[in-house]
Amino acid sequence: MRDAYVEDGATTPFGVREAGLLDLVAEAVDGLDALDRGSLDRVLVASQHPGELGDEANLATRVATELGLVPAAATRVETAPSSGAAALEAAVHAVRAGACERVLVVGAERMTARPRPEASRVLARMIEPRERRLGLAMPGLAGLAARRLLATRDVAREDLARIPVTAHELGARNPHAHFRDPVTVDEVLGSPPVADPLRLYDCAPLSDGAAALVVSARGGPARVAGIGHATDRDALADRRYEAALTRFRATTAAARGAFRQAEAEPGDVDVAEVHDAFSFLEATSLEDLGLVDRGEGFRAHLEGRTRPDGDLPVNVSGGLKARGHPVGATGVAQAVECLRQLTGRGPGPAVDGADLALAHNVGGFGNNVLVTLLEAVP
Amino acid sequence: MRDAYVEDGATTPFGVREAGLLDLVAEAVDGLDALDRGSLDRVLVASQHPGELGDEANLATRVATELGLVPAAATRVETAPSSGAAALEAAVHAVRAGACERVLVVGAERMTARPRPEASRVLARMIEPRERRLGLAMPGLAGLAARRLLATRDVAREDLARIPVTAHELGARNPHAHFRDPVTVDEVLGSPPVADPLRLYDCAPLSDGAAALVVSARGGPARVAGIGHATDRDALADRRYEAALTRFRATTAAARGAFRQAEAEPGDVDVAEVHDAFSFLEATSLEDLGLVDRGEGFRAHLEGRTRPDGDLPVNVSGGLKARGHPVGATGVAQAVECLRQLTGRGPGPAVDGADLALAHNVGGFGNNVLVTLLEAVP
Repeated sequence: MRDAYVEDGATTPFGVREAGLLDLVAEAVDGLDALDRGSLDRVLVASQHPGELGDEANLATRVATELGLVPAAATRVETAPSSGAAALEAAVHAVRAGACERVLVVGAERMTARPRPEASRVLARMIEPRERRLGLAMPGLAGLAARRLLATRDVAREDLARIPVTAHELGARNPHAHFRDPVTVDEVLGSPPVADPLRLYDCAPLSDGAAALVVSARGGPARVAGIGHATDRDALADRRYEAALTRFRATTAAARGAFRQAEAEPGDVDVAEVHDAFSFLEATSLEDLGLVDRGEGFRAHLEGRTRPDGDLPVNVSGGLKARGHPVGATGVAQAVECLRQLTGRGPGPAVDGADLALAHNVGGFGNNVLVTLLEAVP
Repeated sequence: MRDAYVEDGATTPFGVREAGLLDLVAEAVDGLDALDRGSLDRVLVASQHPGELGDEANLATRVATELGLVPAAATRVETAPSSGAAALEAAVHAVRAGACERVLVVGAERMTARPRPEASRVLARMIEPRERRLGLAMPGLAGLAARRLLATRDVAREDLARIPVTAHELGARNPHAHFRDPVTVDEVLGSPPVADPLRLYDCAPLSDGAAALVVSARGGPARVAGIGHATDRDALADRRYEAALTRFRATTAAARGAFRQAEAEPGDVDVAEVHDAFSFLEATSLEDLGLVDRGEGFRAHLEGRTRPDGDLPVNVSGGLKARGHPVGATGVAQAVECLRQLTGRGPGPAVDGADLALAHNVGGFGNNVLVTLLEAVP
């Protein structure tokens, strides 16, 4: 089996953007260094709702046309908000299978073009129908989980609030982040309630943006050491295992798959991008991934271990919370950030001497998860 | 590189169905022989518009949940009406890359649940925006091409009408076909105009239905000998090559890729399923695929070569025209039909002694094409 490498990556600035979906894609691709488009024999496109949110269809072909990649094969991949990582996985499979030499992976989403109630209705379709009929949307499920965490663990509401405070602090150092203003614990606690106990500043925003990666059989500064992919039942109510509200078993399964493939262990990870769509998810995901012991996720944050100068830097980009979360773009952007941390290239602060980076991308409420390990090529 | 095999395949009856999208998927999977679901480590799901036409989202996870496949990796693939073949391609790449042993590929679409004008509006998004603004939808583009064919070739309007007549005749022998009543040339010519010169009976219907395949690293009655995949510019107006209205260059490129991979030639093909969304496309696609010489597509049909007892049986299933065309399911159903022709299993008439079968699946108006070659395993 051939190895797949990441040659280059770039993102647009994330935020509220006027540009259309294809313009965002073109802007992300323009950020790639000296890309020889004629050498690309395939493009994988991640977007969750190009039609309902962006008025597009036949998106893979349209991207291939707009970027001048015709007659390259073009495929759209969708797994809800983990679409970006799933597109990267498909590209890696195509390279490893010998079907192509050099693949462009793009992820893009326009989430602010439609009025927010309409966008929310579209996004709520992600929720399993029985739970949707109860009025649950993604923030409602997250609120249930957060309430359970506060009730069963030695975690204070203020501890939860410290996670977005750090995210905003790091976002302020990332010129492409959606949120670039610091916030305080009091501001998080005083922001409008979304789904008790979660407040507005506990939640990742609806963002517009795109990200692009080049995956190649021919080498590059990072090797795709492993990708794991696992599902869980779509309804939270149907997950009949211990502490199902506050852990994502699919994250653990995907991480195991990635580490097995990479012949690595959680302790080898130097830097991680985790799917912090809601504040507490950064802490619980570190536990699910095996990067910290069960129950130690919040402590790792409170003790500064996850800061850029800690022993396990997490979401140096600002994460979904502050970099922003244009759903189809997120998984690609996480891999771009991992590449940046391994190479030191690109905007914002980088971690010194990172050799193994982990990206954790979640679709639905913990039900379609990919974990990707990128390894620096010496 | 490992080989990928097709173990088994099945479809639901296609037509106007009351069942929901997930019910259709379950029904197709129930048609598989003795499937050990626990042995499936991945599922690929093809559906073009699960949200806009079927009120679903997060479909890959939902399919994995409903079929009891959790924690298997689950990904949705979409390339407009070639989504089914693109999902099969992704499954083949995953197997060849060593990422999994046994993959379920399902394609499904509900096209009749919404009022037809609403469905037509959703489907029209496939058309490149400038051409869409001119009022062109898929039938309009096909009408332009058909008019050009009649003007530039020695083809009579009646010759065009003979293709759906044969399709209906074969559909009548396929218990899963949408249309099971024969039609006459006069009935085709007398059916309501859709986009002059095309009439209603020249066009594939909007169908509901699902299809399922098992792709495996462990062997099976057919080997995936080759898959080619190519794009063309999304706007027909932007295809600046000779006779661009009446040929799909992406079909030719995809076919070349498939034959190269299979180390085979067009003359080796024993039976073909081609994407006859409009009557004339069966004839022109045979030319684009290299299965007949340029200009010989209609003659091949008129001389009976493409009938089940001819030297090049085409669309023995009834094709998109008579079997029906639930867009996301079509590419998977074509591969199911190829498997059936190679093995003789399943409903309806089969061709004797076929060793190499070709499936041709088109997304958009000739702009995202996959060609798959399945070879009988002795």
